[in-house]
Amino acid sequence: MWQDEQFGSLRIGFQTNRLLFKHQSPYQLIEVFETVDYGTILRLDGTWQCSTELEHTYHEMIVHPALTTAPSIENVLIVGGGDGGTAREVLRYPEVRNVDLVEIDSDVVKACKEHLSSIGEGAWDDPRLNLIIGDGIQFVRDAHQKYDVIIVDGSDPIGPSVGLFNSAFFESCARALKSDGVLVTQAESPRVMLDNHIGLIQTIRQHFENVAPYYQGQIIYPGGVWSWIYASQSVDRKNILRDPDPDLMIYNTEIHHAAFAIPNYVQHIINRH
Amino acid sequence: MWQDEQFGSLRIGFQTNRLLFKHQSPYQLIEVFETVDYGTILRLDGTWQCSTELEHTYHEMIVHPALTTAPSIENVLIVGGGDGGTAREVLRYPEVRNVDLVEIDSDVVKACKEHLSSIGEGAWDDPRLNLIIGDGIQFVRDAHQKYDVIIVDGSDPIGPSVGLFNSAFFESCARALKSDGVLVTQAESPRVMLDNHIGLIQTIRQHFENVAPYYQGQIIYPGGVWSWIYASQSVDRKNILRDPDPDLMIYNTEIHHAAFAIPNYVQHIINRH
Repeated sequence: MWQDEQFGSLRIGFQTNRLLFKHQSPYQLIEVFETVDYGTILRLDGTWQCSTELEHTYHEMIVHPALTTAPSIENVLIVGGGDGGTAREVLRYPEVRNVDLVEIDSDVVKACKEHLSSIGEGAWDDPRLNLIIGDGIQFVRDAHQKYDVIIVDGSDPIGPSVGLFNSAFFESCARALKSDGVLVTQAESPRVMLDNHIGLIQTIRQHFENVAPYYQGQIIYPGGVWSWIYASQSVDRKNILRDPDPDLMIYNTEIHHAAFAIPNYVQHIINRH
Repeated sequence: MWQDEQFGSLRIGFQTNRLLFKHQSPYQLIEVFETVDYGTILRLDGTWQCSTELEHTYHEMIVHPALTTAPSIENVLIVGGGDGGTAREVLRYPEVRNVDLVEIDSDVVKACKEHLSSIGEGAWDDPRLNLIIGDGIQFVRDAHQKYDVIIVDGSDPIGPSVGLFNSAFFESCARALKSDGVLVTQAESPRVMLDNHIGLIQTIRQHFENVAPYYQGQIIYPGGVWSWIYASQSVDRKNILRDPDPDLMIYNTEIHHAAFAIPNYVQHIINRH
């Protein structure tokens, strides 16, 4: 049976063998399918989040540009990331001592631990991981000058993630980061969600000195290419301080530098503002 | 009405307003749809080829890496490319004096000229363009030491394009190129057509000294990221000799260098061979 994400008049679908889980949580509709070729896949409110076979590109790209370049990576905050993949990648670094993962929807964590367990493998049991079920926006508002790295791994700006795209949130993030800290957030499709992408760059620029979008192709999200934003007050994103794990699926130092190349149509809009 | 490309158990679909053209040519099933948001789109044997709104990324990436770096670009051969987009990008360069475009299926050219006319705009009427309806494989076999650049812009290795993926064809291409010429070919999805992608790199390596795959995200092809291969006997692909047109949608010198970054999973396979 075909299951799709419909994004406006575009759709991406997978042939599935069966529905493994379906539950309307207080925040969103959670569905898990066994696909024919791409492992087990999570859909939230109709949008694909991650599949066990196709998750690596996303999780490597949201984590390693920050973790290889931040001066210190002892104390990391993940907002969202309830599938565990971002935590898993962060925890590859022995220098990491504490990861606070604040996920609003405990049902997402439960569904992922049960049905997409490979994504968070090793992470959930790592004593350095501190799972907090709660509102990431409030959590960041109450945290001050604590974190070396903050990674915002939310879904699209609808439903529970809408507050992860506004100025107040990034103001809190700037306060919650050490002065030489690094923030990364997923930043939507630069093609089919261009307004969101540009808006997010502008919003984050209000609170950080150095703001750089970066890009990588993705299969399961609409638009082919996906984006993240790297933000800091002073860190040089080109200065790689830690060798990436050679066992990563895609990320290496060449991919790091390449990802920050900005296509003309985005650069032209950024220049105008 | 939804129309899809189904690639195995993955599909990419567009909501369409109407079917504009449908014809079984001697080579393939040609369909043209008006989409709701992405302009007019061409489908050949069930696989998306190009849409008027989303074609720029593909055509810029198949043309400009070669055209900015080849020592001479006076005489260019395009094999395939019946939509006219590759020719349009080649003809941006005043140094180009002659473009031979060899397309096997005259019905594709006809359909594109009528229904996707913006793609080949300016190209079809350019006196430098020499449109040849015929078999590109035979054409290249009979051409010797002529071309500065050869661009292979065929479809997937099924149907009429299957011969554009084998060793004999690239042997002919190597003979048809000047010794300081550059060849580029589209090289499939490195994710969902990895075997084809790697196979093509290996095949081309039999006939060219310097062979480098390069990558860019794509919306309408399965797998999110698409690939091309840059091949030469001696040309330095990093040495950009001509400034790219600043009006291009994505391609610039940063995108050029970035595109050649190879993800680990591809590099590991290449290293083993």
